[in-house]
Amino acid sequence: MHMNRTIILVAGGDLRYGYTAQALAANDAYEVWAAGIPKKFLPDERIHLVESAADGLPMCDVLLLPMPVSEDGVLVNAPFSRRHLPLQGFIPKVREGGLVLGGKFGKAQAVFQQAGLETVDYLAREELSMRNAVPTAEGAVQIMLEEMPRTIFGSRVLLLGFGRIGARMAMLLKAFGAQVTVAARDPAARAGAEMLGCRSIPFTALQEAALQADVICNTVPAKIITESVLKAIQQETLVLDLASKPGGVDWDAAQELGRQVVWALSLPGKTAPVTAGEIIAVTVAHILEERRTAHGET
Amino acid sequence: MHMNRTIILVAGGDLRYGYTAQALAANDAYEVWAAGIPKKFLPDERIHLVESAADGLPMCDVLLLPMPVSEDGVLVNAPFSRRHLPLQGFIPKVREGGLVLGGKFGKAQAVFQQAGLETVDYLAREELSMRNAVPTAEGAVQIMLEEMPRTIFGSRVLLLGFGRIGARMAMLLKAFGAQVTVAARDPAARAGAEMLGCRSIPFTALQEAALQADVICNTVPAKIITESVLKAIQQETLVLDLASKPGGVDWDAAQELGRQVVWALSLPGKTAPVTAGEIIAVTVAHILEERRTAHGET
Amino acid sequence: MHMNRTIILVAGGDLRYGYTAQALAANDAYEVWAAGIPKKFLPDERIHLVESAADGLPMCDVLLLPMPVSEDGVLVNAPFSRRHLPLQGFIPKVREGGLVLGGKFGKAQAVFQQAGLETVDYLAREELSMRNAVPTAEGAVQIMLEEMPRTIFGSRVLLLGFGRIGARMAMLLKAFGAQVTVAARDPAARAGAEMLGCRSIPFTALQEAALQADVICNTVPAKIITESVLKAIQQETLVLDLASKPGGVDWDAAQELGRQVVWALSLPGKTAPVTAGEIIAVTVAHILEERRTAHGET
Amino acid sequence: MHMNRTIILVAGGDLRYGYTAQALAANDAYEVWAAGIPKKFLPDERIHLVESAADGLPMCDVLLLPMPVSEDGVLVNAPFSRRHLPLQGFIPKVREGGLVLGGKFGKAQAVFQQAGLETVDYLAREELSMRNAVPTAEGAVQIMLEEMPRTIFGSRVLLLGFGRIGARMAMLLKAFGAQVTVAARDPAARAGAEMLGCRSIPFTALQEAALQADVICNTVPAKIITESVLKAIQQETLVLDLASKPGGVDWDAAQELGRQVVWALSLPGKTAPVTAGEIIAVTVAHILEERRTAHGET
Repeated sequence: MHMNRTIILVAGGDLRYGYTAQALAANDAYEVWAAGIPKKFLPDERIHLVESAADGLPMCDVLLLPMPVSEDGVLVNAPFSRRHLPLQGFIPKVREGGLVLGGKFGKAQAVFQQAGLETVDYLAREELSMRNAVPTAEGAVQIMLEEMPRTIFGSRVLLLGFGRIGARMAMLLKAFGAQVTVAARDPAARAGAEMLGCRSIPFTALQEAALQADVICNTVPAKIITESVLKAIQQETLVLDLASKPGGVDWDAAQELGRQVVWALSLPGKTAPVTAGEIIAVTVAHILEERRTAHGET
Repeated sequence: MHMNRTIILVAGGDLRYGYTAQALAANDAYEVWAAGIPKKFLPDERIHLVESAADGLPMCDVLLLPMPVSEDGVLVNAPFSRRHLPLQGFIPKVREGGLVLGGKFGKAQAVFQQAGLETVDYLAREELSMRNAVPTAEGAVQIMLEEMPRTIFGSRVLLLGFGRIGARMAMLLKAFGAQVTVAARDPAARAGAEMLGCRSIPFTALQEAALQADVICNTVPAKIITESVLKAIQQETLVLDLASKPGGVDWDAAQELGRQVVWALSLPGKTAPVTAGEIIAVTVAHILEERRTAHGET
Repeated sequence: MHMNRTIILVAGGDLRYGYTAQALAANDAYEVWAAGIPKKFLPDERIHLVESAADGLPMCDVLLLPMPVSEDGVLVNAPFSRRHLPLQGFIPKVREGGLVLGGKFGKAQAVFQQAGLETVDYLAREELSMRNAVPTAEGAVQIMLEEMPRTIFGSRVLLLGFGRIGARMAMLLKAFGAQVTVAARDPAARAGAEMLGCRSIPFTALQEAALQADVICNTVPAKIITESVLKAIQQETLVLDLASKPGGVDWDAAQELGRQVVWALSLPGKTAPVTAGEIIAVTVAHILEERRTAHGET
Repeated sequence: MHMNRTIILVAGGDLRYGYTAQALAANDAYEVWAAGIPKKFLPDERIHLVESAADGLPMCDVLLLPMPVSEDGVLVNAPFSRRHLPLQGFIPKVREGGLVLGGKFGKAQAVFQQAGLETVDYLAREELSMRNAVPTAEGAVQIMLEEMPRTIFGSRVLLLGFGRIGARMAMLLKAFGAQVTVAARDPAARAGAEMLGCRSIPFTALQEAALQADVICNTVPAKIITESVLKAIQQETLVLDLASKPGGVDWDAAQELGRQVVWALSLPGKTAPVTAGEIIAVTVAHILEERRTAHGET
């Protein structure tokens, strides 16, 4: 038994947060409680389940909330909970100096600030975005394998953007043996793509490259797959959009032209909920470790 | 226009053979005719379509038949043809000294032999099996991505067998970042697996390794995933069987124990029909080139 | 013949700048002159050679100077030139509005500023650092192959730092089949290392990891391989320091302890001068293209 | 302490066999003696050293001889031994039913056969050749890095042959980012090369491909780099011959034409003696395990 275990309360969230709770509970340094997550998502016997903040919770060191924290700034985002979980209800259960972690606080931010509690947004951690590139890229590869009538090996892929997700996709697609062209604005990003064996182009050469592609995969959150690009590409070309709303494809044009477009959002939670949950857990653990080290409690 | 184009008749077969015909027709050295394949599978205008051997076919240099050539030794295996295509009907259309190519002749062999025609089984070509390992491995990866609740990255994969398919899978899975253990009988195969960064074990250590696996993928055509292995593995472990009939899994035991087993047969044609058709075409082209070279017609 | 060729004068520099001049001359858009580079380094007949600024030079659009531009702020750094090349001498040869490119200007900066000429440091371009990671990592691999009595396959490598060079090395070493541990401060960098299949540690765990290493490769410009680390490692462990002066190794301690340390500086120019020269050329070309585009001369 | 340890006597050999003895001694199942190997090559205290067969050796289960076993059929090949080690002298020290292992027995074979001792050539084990492809390919990469004035990244490499060594080289060179063309006779080998992302050609296209190469690396033991090939290639092209005697290069022509040829033989022992020794040890261990299993002594 660990002497001073950190008490973490996971409140609300979807399936992923069950896996987050389990991954945290596997670490002997944490005592994990969960509210508003069904028992079937939490087979781990080390986790203490409650239905609401009123149900015999101890004082917690950390309150871990989902992404987004709340839709309305009043209730915790808890799609699988049988009861409403007001944000306010958890405040008395967090000890003085305790920490509230969440993914995009929005209006909920003010609630905790007024109560004098520190909030940290784990979505803002670069490492979380890095790690999430893995399930996102795997989800995108899955869609390509499902939708294309040919192997990725030998296919001509046009990848738009070369951030974390673009780089991970380039690496996977090259391992499959695809011919990958990367369009990126930044010359350093293009150099990085070339170093992985990809051809690289600036966005000004996009339309010409699009003509030659079996699949176009967009990771840039800007309308770059315009009507004129969609008109230019071949009928069989698969367009895969990974960019968050409003996405990179002119949807009206795509529909009118009958182009084959797949808009794939929030892939980590959909294709690999266990891993997505574990990624949140490892990020949370790092946040807590850094604070302990900073406070000299090594 | 090529002076002496080789006339190839593609008769019967599924969707793949449409792509085979198209890939052959893209080579100016070949004049391609097709019988018993619907027009919609053959958009290429260079291909001459007929419905049967009676429909104005020229004398052919090569008759290309599907795999298997025939179910009953009487009719060409032509699932999409509107008419029956008797094997006998094509014999008068192959010139003396011409060649009959097919995948597994079975009883059909005798029909052509009696007519004095040479037959070659393209399925027996090592290069075809090599190339088919690509779509097979991609299809297997697709199933893993679909069925597993976690990323391939970080997953523990137990791969049974290290032939062409096993080696291709090992390479892909390592690129994804999986922890791959390969079970193989031959010490040289195990050395090959280790050279790709995999752990290797003999089959005697199979059961113990199975306990630790998130997914077990079999490529060995022998019942090695026995009842005792199935009993030992965890409930969540995915079992993927790529071995041809009768496969490597004890199915009765698997059903009784409620294990999650996917039996994936003939993946190339299912997951990548275009590539599968092209692979047949490239193999056929190599067979024809080698014969031309051997006959001094370089 | 290109209508309005950009006239580039390459002045001074080592062997690399010969290759830079040749790579630029291969582009029809550029007319290339060279000063202070021996004929034998410039076999390309398209390049116009002069010995000094006085020798019949046309007015130039671009003056390309080496890295560093000058040791003393007076003369161009031109180790192979038979004559002194004063910086001042080139000023009248650059047209009004022309551009002076160099790698680290130092005191030379003022000389050109006073003359009203714009200077750009190509060493500050992220893409140049990116591309230089390739020859640096190859040079480091070469040293490992030369110095180690075992294969990189199976070796335990401890890599300090995960910037451009660290990431390239990790990728290469994993391809060889090494067991790579990456020490990095930033959790996102550690996540990136793990995504390549490396184990990752914070610097606090450095000493323990060093004990297990066959080779330690440093890319961090800070004294992190201290006396206590050097004492802890095994006699046979190779220490390879890629960090620029003052480097990452306590040299006095290393010598006293008889540790096997290789300090590898400026690897691109040493191990791959052709590529190093081409990298400068491609960076220069990008700088010129961007300016042309910005000025609306697409 | 292991109950029935197998007593192995390592007699003669170069530096590698010191590492072989040490790797065997690390396995508790073996008691290792060494004859004719200097103490400085055998720091491991578990190894019992003798200078000749007369020096207090116990009866051995296994006599492990070097490659080649003997130059003259009389003495063990023992370049570092201070005394002559006659083959005959070891025969009384091998127990009845014991095993004599060696690499290429030649005339020595008869000596042991007449004494009724079974001999096994470990060089004939496929797994040894497989594993040796790793140090051979690393040694070849080292030579390329040393000899070429450019990075392997982006270089055009022509690889002749696609056996174990060719395949390993192709994999490494692709990881570096080279443009690799593989020449191979067998269409299945060419398919294998394409699956790694290489271009493939038959040997009939060799001369044309040689013109485009920055480096030509031969692994085929046949004179395929003929005078006409050597005449065709560029002056700067590096030719690297890994094929065992008589090699694949027309040496007279190469010298006359002043071509840059490196003939690299026996790379494993030269570039990675530790690994080369360990590879012999693991192969020997597998031979012994298989015999134990076959004899029912699991």
